[in-house]
Amino acid sequence: MDTQVVIIGGGPSGLLLSQLLNRAGVATVILERGTRDHVLSRIRAGILEWGSVEVLREAGVGARMDAEGIPHDGTLITDADRVVHIDFKGLTGRRVMVYGQTEVTRDLYAAQDAMGTTIIHGVQDVRILDLDGPRASVEYTVDGQRRRLTCAHVAGCDGFHGVSRKTIPADKRQEFERVYPFGWLGILSRTPPVADELIYANSPHGFALASMRSESLVRYYVQVPLTDTVADWPDDRFWTEFRRRIPSDAAARLVTGPSIEKSIAPLRSFVSEPLRWGRLFLVGDAAHIVPPTGAKGLNLAVSDVFYLHDALIAALKGDQTGIDAYSARALARIWKAMRFSWQMTTMLHRFDGEDSFAARMRRATLAHLAESETARRDLAENYVGLPY
Amino acid sequence: MDTQVVIIGGGPSGLLLSQLLNRAGVATVILERGTRDHVLSRIRAGILEWGSVEVLREAGVGARMDAEGIPHDGTLITDADRVVHIDFKGLTGRRVMVYGQTEVTRDLYAAQDAMGTTIIHGVQDVRILDLDGPRASVEYTVDGQRRRLTCAHVAGCDGFHGVSRKTIPADKRQEFERVYPFGWLGILSRTPPVADELIYANSPHGFALASMRSESLVRYYVQVPLTDTVADWPDDRFWTEFRRRIPSDAAARLVTGPSIEKSIAPLRSFVSEPLRWGRLFLVGDAAHIVPPTGAKGLNLAVSDVFYLHDALIAALKGDQTGIDAYSARALARIWKAMRFSWQMTTMLHRFDGEDSFAARMRRATLAHLAESETARRDLAENYVGLPY
Repeated sequence: MDTQVVIIGGGPSGLLLSQLLNRAGVATVILERGTRDHVLSRIRAGILEWGSVEVLREAGVGARMDAEGIPHDGTLITDADRVVHIDFKGLTGRRVMVYGQTEVTRDLYAAQDAMGTTIIHGVQDVRILDLDGPRASVEYTVDGQRRRLTCAHVAGCDGFHGVSRKTIPADKRQEFERVYPFGWLGILSRTPPVADELIYANSPHGFALASMRSESLVRYYVQVPLTDTVADWPDDRFWTEFRRRIPSDAAARLVTGPSIEKSIAPLRSFVSEPLRWGRLFLVGDAAHIVPPTGAKGLNLAVSDVFYLHDALIAALKGDQTGIDAYSARALARIWKAMRFSWQMTTMLHRFDGEDSFAARMRRATLAHLAESETARRDLAENYVGLPY
Repeated sequence: MDTQVVIIGGGPSGLLLSQLLNRAGVATVILERGTRDHVLSRIRAGILEWGSVEVLREAGVGARMDAEGIPHDGTLITDADRVVHIDFKGLTGRRVMVYGQTEVTRDLYAAQDAMGTTIIHGVQDVRILDLDGPRASVEYTVDGQRRRLTCAHVAGCDGFHGVSRKTIPADKRQEFERVYPFGWLGILSRTPPVADELIYANSPHGFALASMRSESLVRYYVQVPLTDTVADWPDDRFWTEFRRRIPSDAAARLVTGPSIEKSIAPLRSFVSEPLRWGRLFLVGDAAHIVPPTGAKGLNLAVSDVFYLHDALIAALKGDQTGIDAYSARALARIWKAMRFSWQMTTMLHRFDGEDSFAARMRRATLAHLAESETARRDLAENYVGLPY
């Protein structure tokens, strides 16, 4: 079987790339390891930069997002009871959209189904071959059958653990990594949000994030030691801990309820360079991971997709300049978001074993944010998203 | 003997405080451990915030500074050959003054001599007593004689190693400290400056700073391991190392010459809280040390002096509110400068044993500065000095 672009991975980046390519008349096949239900069960990011909103609209999947998403004009950053409002709208003229990654993925499946795109689920043992030849090929197993696709280009949208990045020889890649000494315990609960905007809360007890998916569904997190498991955190313990980390006025109006999902995610910064290896192009988590502080993960995947769809369309028409520039162009934006996410993570989390000077520098950084409009503008410009 | 304020330490903070108090009619005695020549031989900071310039003028010691000092409207921050201009004037409407600490001290001695102030040199074994009584007293030895002064207030301007801070019981102080794993090797040389503005240079070989004292006298530094001594750094080695750390166009026009002073200073962040203990008030390095990156040391001493002189004048007239507020008021500004100096130091130095992610974060931080006017404005606002 033959196609123009094989996309490894049927998460939001693979689906969005496919959708943008299909709309430009480029044929794609998506190979996904899991089932559709599995992909849709992953609870991830919930904040879209306005640039991402515009790409999703351009991909023809903006209708439900525009109807159900909640634009946010700012966010709250707190240090115990000190509350700093970051007025995105006032500082940058831009805003962000609260709309869950699961919903984006659902919209993309619906749109891809409508396009009649081939999405093959339950794919195993993917091998990506002939990347320096005139055609690439991808071998995989599905339903016990070994199959093979040939194509002009392969997009690696298969996440951190996927095969795409590892297809680039280890001695041709450079990897940069920071593993943070804590994780985020997150819950979903059908309760009203404790505030109209997100609260990024630093506290003597560690970090907490109050985020939301809708007016009746919240996603709340607390920083936990990496050694903790979900079993260590019955709902009561979560609510007690969450309540003492957010400002007291928010704690006083907090509505609690049973969790409908609970999980612990480690925090990691990771970049693998380059993003291109012959006919293979890495996209999103396959090449880079940010800690969730600052909400850049999905948004970086969208900007990678945006750069790559353009480059591939041009390449299929004979213009190679876009694909030659892809890695450098995407990495330039990726490193900026890496810096921002690392800085936000460092500013907001308690590090076990830190000395009193480090704790004061964190407090001073938050005080600087409270006192300096310039510092707030810098944060806002990065949070709403740097230009593509 | 009896006076109103005893000042421990005859460096620039002690002299400036005395000068401001004397001009308001307050009697002072300054006790200094070293000789005047020793005090004047210390090569220290060379950049005055405009707020410091104004305080020195107000103290009546601005004439030579205004005639010989060099206003700088900006500075250069470089990453290998990438040059970022921080346009203080354009970004903040303010500038800084290049005028060496030694010259400030010389001007202050001249002014104090003209006032007829008592400055006792060669003072040893200082003890500060009766800080919770109706009068404080200070005992000291000079020329083999034990003497005693009584006074209303004592100002501890005797630096990091002085007796003043240690007079506060250890269990009543909280200390915050960060010792950086490198030092600065500095030279003075009678050569023309390599650039019109200072160059703060990050490079793969470590940090360098090109600063100046006048149009024919430079103060240049390179980051060195803490284990190095001056003997390890003959002039030739210094110039070779300095040249490869600054941008290549600057290196091409570098004029070298014999060093006329050479020394290595460790880098430290340190704060001791509180600044007041009964009738004793800590000022400048006696209470806090910043690494020199960002040139905040002398400027923080000036703002401490500014707050304290006001408070003491009021207290001697019966209004205690200023001295009651001094510690908190000074510390608020100190912690902001601590944050800025720590951030500048972290952004510009190579840390031995750092991983590749840390090195990229440093590069990304410098790239952010290059690309974001907001980031440059934030740096400029802090560099030219936050409001008193």
